Amino acid sequence: MPPHTRVNMADVARRAGVSMATASRALSNHPHVAEETRARVLAAAEQLSYVVSPEASRLAGGATDRVAVVVPHISRWFFATLLEGLEAVLRDADLDVLLYHVGDAADRRDFFQRLPARRKVDAVVVLGMPVMHGERERLESMGVHIVAAGGQVEHYPYVSIDDAAAGRQAVDHLLFLGHRRIGMIATVEPTEPGWPANPGRARAYREALAEAGLPAEPGLVVTVPWGGVPGADAMSQLLSLREPPTAVYAHSDEVAFGAMRTLRRAGLRIPEDMSVVGIDDHPMAELADLTTVAQPVRDQGVAAGRMLLALLAGGEPEGGGTVATRLVVRGSTGPPRPGSSRARSSSPRPGRR
Amino acid sequence: MPPHTRVNMADVARRAGVSMATASRALSNHPHVAEETRARVLAAAEQLSYVVSPEASRLAGGATDRVAVVVPHISRWFFATLLEGLEAVLRDADLDVLLYHVGDAADRRDFFQRLPARRKVDAVVVLGMPVMHGERERLESMGVHIVAAGGQVEHYPYVSIDDAAAGRQAVDHLLFLGHRRIGMIATVEPTEPGWPANPGRARAYREALAEAGLPAEPGLVVTVPWGGVPGADAMSQLLSLREPPTAVYAHSDEVAFGAMRTLRRAGLRIPEDMSVVGIDDHPMAELADLTTVAQPVRDQGVAAGRMLLALLAGGEPEGGGTVATRLVVRGSTGPPRPGSSRARSSSPRPGRR
Repeated sequence: MPPHTRVNMADVARRAGVSMATASRALSNHPHVAEETRARVLAAAEQLSYVVSPEASRLAGGATDRVAVVVPHISRWFFATLLEGLEAVLRDADLDVLLYHVGDAADRRDFFQRLPARRKVDAVVVLGMPVMHGERERLESMGVHIVAAGGQVEHYPYVSIDDAAAGRQAVDHLLFLGHRRIGMIATVEPTEPGWPANPGRARAYREALAEAGLPAEPGLVVTVPWGGVPGADAMSQLLSLREPPTAVYAHSDEVAFGAMRTLRRAGLRIPEDMSVVGIDDHPMAELADLTTVAQPVRDQGVAAGRMLLALLAGGEPEGGGTVATRLVVRGSTGPPRPGSSRARSSSPRPGRR
Repeated sequence: MPPHTRVNMADVARRAGVSMATASRALSNHPHVAEETRARVLAAAEQLSYVVSPEASRLAGGATDRVAVVVPHISRWFFATLLEGLEAVLRDADLDVLLYHVGDAADRRDFFQRLPARRKVDAVVVLGMPVMHGERERLESMGVHIVAAGGQVEHYPYVSIDDAAAGRQAVDHLLFLGHRRIGMIATVEPTEPGWPANPGRARAYREALAEAGLPAEPGLVVTVPWGGVPGADAMSQLLSLREPPTAVYAHSDEVAFGAMRTLRRAGLRIPEDMSVVGIDDHPMAELADLTTVAQPVRDQGVAAGRMLLALLAGGEPEGGGTVATRLVVRGSTGPPRPGSSRARSSSPRPGRR
């Protein structure tokens, strides 16, 4: 290896046959590393003349006292609430929050390309968005800690709900009430079509229907961009079906609010003519009397902050993983009207009176 | 003066008989300072052996490339949206955003006391909150630029709506529709009772009624903490009056959403039995069919960011000041029902049927 080529931690990890995280822990004298592994990493470091870089040394001391927080949206309630919880914990620990809004693919690229060169944070917290493979390598090469909240990021400490379980709570509630013709309003992230939050919520719907012995009808699933107005449009689409559903499961409360607006404008009663269930327990859900699956959003930000503090102190992250959701039954769901079942498709259709 | 006492800009300003801001501008060769004033400041600096401090020198160069953004709330839509607009401009200019949530008086004290010692930002942007006198001195002693958005902070470049004008648009709309018995739901900041946003909105109500020749009835004004549930409670209180109003003006949309929930639960029709108007044009306002006074929230954050960039570049802040609001008429307001005027107080009361 030429003398002026800087050896980085990725080289050491590769040589030792361990992950970046393990190499990082071994080199920073982290207690939870097997002795054999630590010896292997140290040997690799010696062979490569690896010098602990300023960035890597921050692992122990937190030299910058700054944490980068990366969010795909600032003004949406879910992300702002995660951020509020996280910021409170970091501020208490006297760490500064550097906020980075990465709204689209170009922003993401820019953020991940420039951050290492700047060497200005001890850790990165990723809120409600995925971290791609190349981006992970970049972060790891900096030797900074990485924590995710509001979504699971493979290979990193995270705190998140189980989207599939949350979706099941919503759809099972509709099935329990007797609905047999259930629509779904799914949402897409225009910039992040691969983000697994929505696939989990969609899978829950398919599995719940299959277990109930109900057929999958593609027409009952409408996929729209996230937001209230798209939710309203999606409900219009469902109402225009030859045989509309008797209940609708929306992937988020804000989408459900839009769906409810369409129902009110169509002169339909909620839940007599149509039940609606969401996910989140947005502050407006109580006011809108929306049945929903509540997730503790601020708490996820707090838990991520605490995990990060433990990591920065050289310990193991605790209190992360999957947090529980719970069904909150309000006035927007009820049993289907008699005569509204699909067995009587000649009966008056809810959307057409 | 003892040799080891560091002379600061406040000493220079005092000696020269000018404000901190003027002293700062004079010392940084800002073009908009009268020659006589500049000469006086330079003479004072020389007499005091004032050395331009690292902080003061940042005025020109922006040495840290970081901007502190101070917000009283993160998760509320208004503040998160301001922040989103501001962050976009600062990020484009390659400035980092350090986010500080100052939720209560202790947080505020902590922030303003510690920031100067840390010397880590080129500027401070204050979003939607006041800056007290002692705090201003502290910021000025750092030699950092200060900009306010979402509210007017005396003595600093700001961008904000005119709260009194916005309130007039709301109340005048109700008067134009023929309402003569108008309630108001005002809100308080528990931690910032002196923040002038709400006084402006309250003054608008009193002035509009006075100009219309209507008496001020204290019972028609309910003051609650900010939020949807308090808004719902406030409407319950108005409905319990011997003679309820026929229309209600809420200081913000989120409060109005709560008020509308109470009306729906009471079986009252909006607007036939009660008109409701808010301020903001929250994203949910369209879905809730709420008449409101729209303010451009994200744009205020963007404008504040641009003002700050101009200041950091040594120029004059442009594009700030008061931004226009506009009435957005939706389905929540209409003329009062015949027979609901106060002249016929023996008629059936909306809240009691």
